Amino acid sequence: MTERRWDPFQREWVVTATHRQDRTFKPPKDYCPFCPADPDDEVPTAVPREEYDIAVVENAFPSLQPDPPEPAVDDGDLFRAKPATGACEVVLFTDDHDAVVSELPTEQFQRLVAVWQDRYRDLGADPDHEYVYVFENRGEEIGVTLEHPHGQIYAYPFVPPRIRRELDASRDHREETGECLFCDVLAAERDDGARIVAETDHFTAFVPFQARYAYEMHVYADDHLPSLDEFEGRHVDDLGRMLKEVLLRYDALFDFELPYVMALHQRPTDGSGDGYAHFHIEFYPPHRTAQKLKHLAGSERGAGTFVNNKLAEAAAAELRECL
Amino acid sequence: MTERRWDPFQREWVVTATHRQDRTFKPPKDYCPFCPADPDDEVPTAVPREEYDIAVVENAFPSLQPDPPEPAVDDGDLFRAKPATGACEVVLFTDDHDAVVSELPTEQFQRLVAVWQDRYRDLGADPDHEYVYVFENRGEEIGVTLEHPHGQIYAYPFVPPRIRRELDASRDHREETGECLFCDVLAAERDDGARIVAETDHFTAFVPFQARYAYEMHVYADDHLPSLDEFEGRHVDDLGRMLKEVLLRYDALFDFELPYVMALHQRPTDGSGDGYAHFHIEFYPPHRTAQKLKHLAGSERGAGTFVNNKLAEAAAAELRECL
Repeated sequence: MTERRWDPFQREWVVTATHRQDRTFKPPKDYCPFCPADPDDEVPTAVPREEYDIAVVENAFPSLQPDPPEPAVDDGDLFRAKPATGACEVVLFTDDHDAVVSELPTEQFQRLVAVWQDRYRDLGADPDHEYVYVFENRGEEIGVTLEHPHGQIYAYPFVPPRIRRELDASRDHREETGECLFCDVLAAERDDGARIVAETDHFTAFVPFQARYAYEMHVYADDHLPSLDEFEGRHVDDLGRMLKEVLLRYDALFDFELPYVMALHQRPTDGSGDGYAHFHIEFYPPHRTAQKLKHLAGSERGAGTFVNNKLAEAAAAELRECL
Repeated sequence: MTERRWDPFQREWVVTATHRQDRTFKPPKDYCPFCPADPDDEVPTAVPREEYDIAVVENAFPSLQPDPPEPAVDDGDLFRAKPATGACEVVLFTDDHDAVVSELPTEQFQRLVAVWQDRYRDLGADPDHEYVYVFENRGEEIGVTLEHPHGQIYAYPFVPPRIRRELDASRDHREETGECLFCDVLAAERDDGARIVAETDHFTAFVPFQARYAYEMHVYADDHLPSLDEFEGRHVDDLGRMLKEVLLRYDALFDFELPYVMALHQRPTDGSGDGYAHFHIEFYPPHRTAQKLKHLAGSERGAGTFVNNKLAEAAAAELRECL
């Protein structure tokens, strides 16, 4: 069973996907569904070939589906439900189950960005998909149940609320000032400098002034590029360089592979966003120290207000100096 | 250091409280700061008396403070900060460190509701406090660092965004229909019945249609009571009964003390909410099965869209039948 239900209080969709209760949960390494399968193997995997660079496969337990069932309950009033139309893909970063991703060659990151660009264009061309969301959950602390290095793509049939809110803010800012809010914030962060962590030719990484997580980092395109679709080859290659640098810094911070959520925010594929959507990546590591996690608890889950135990300027200094 | 910073994208405040990095973290039982302290003890605690029923103490590591420092950075434009004015209190549910809360007598829950009512009125009378938020983080899985049974109260200098959004929705609904949205949803849930878990004289517990967490439960006041301030003695006593029943059901579900976030939502103390605020309690347990947790990951943290792996109707049936 999968459907989306309307929350009349938050005025947003919640996806119910009950088949995901039974999804593959921390299988032994020999049964990894993402490793390449030798054609002679008895155990098939999602990638039936001897090796691969990067592979995109369908999520075997998709929250969103091309042809979902009709919802059982919908009263058209306070209990509204719609089919959970969409797509869920898995992006396998390497065929090496044990790879430390930050140690992969720069070219592998560049290939990954090119794959993201292809998937953004392809999934975004389907009129059912209003937002193509590229993301990665990394580490058991964030709930990862398969250890083979991989990210995900959800093609939602709506613009998700956290992304909707920032787009609305940027649209309003543009109406008031004529400028893209992301461009203005990036310029202010660069002027200030205290929270900048790394710069490449076309991208800037910084801990945002309003960070929610202790070691949150954002990577902004320096130019006003709304989405991966507008990337030229030099942007693809340079974002690959930046991604490797961000991961190297994260892994150097506490000397282990730092868990995080990585979220790509860019232009919706519903035709909106012109002039105010701006490609950027947000990283939210759950660690607030090497040993301690920031849990989302009463203030965050019940009230919606984040309490960050780390000063953004201090986190940025540590991330600058850890390499 | 503590201050609140404005997020220009989500258009909400984020609290930075760096002194909380050093807060007491899972102390041995002999050093519990919430146990009653024998006057002859060498180790003082927050409650220097031999015993107590329920105690309210100041949070030793408050995110919000009556006299917070002025923010260091505030450019009045994209980098806005304000003092983190407010109050943080801890409510000790019992002096018995090892108590199983659901097994406390009904009278103890009734005393607790009366204490909440007192604190809501007292903290709400301070014009610096626009929202008095009563909540509980229960269980290590949700990040609890002190095991003595306790809840918390935050008096925020603003209405937090998740609560702001539901109040805005209820206000708009009232403008359109003349009715309180909470009253209408409660009536629809009672009409449907499939998600109702328990009823007492004045309160109804149900798994909401739009549940985000597998075993999420909401407890609504049957009457249109905006806040604890309007509770008469019979409401106080009856909510005590309902709380005990909810906890007994949660603990019976998987035969252990189920972790959760408990969030009291009611009328802000800034003068708003007349006619559309409605007292209710929301419980968010992180468990999706007896062994597995629902982690908030890419879709929830980065996009804001929750994926629930459990059908609300099925969860309600289990919670109805577990006692």
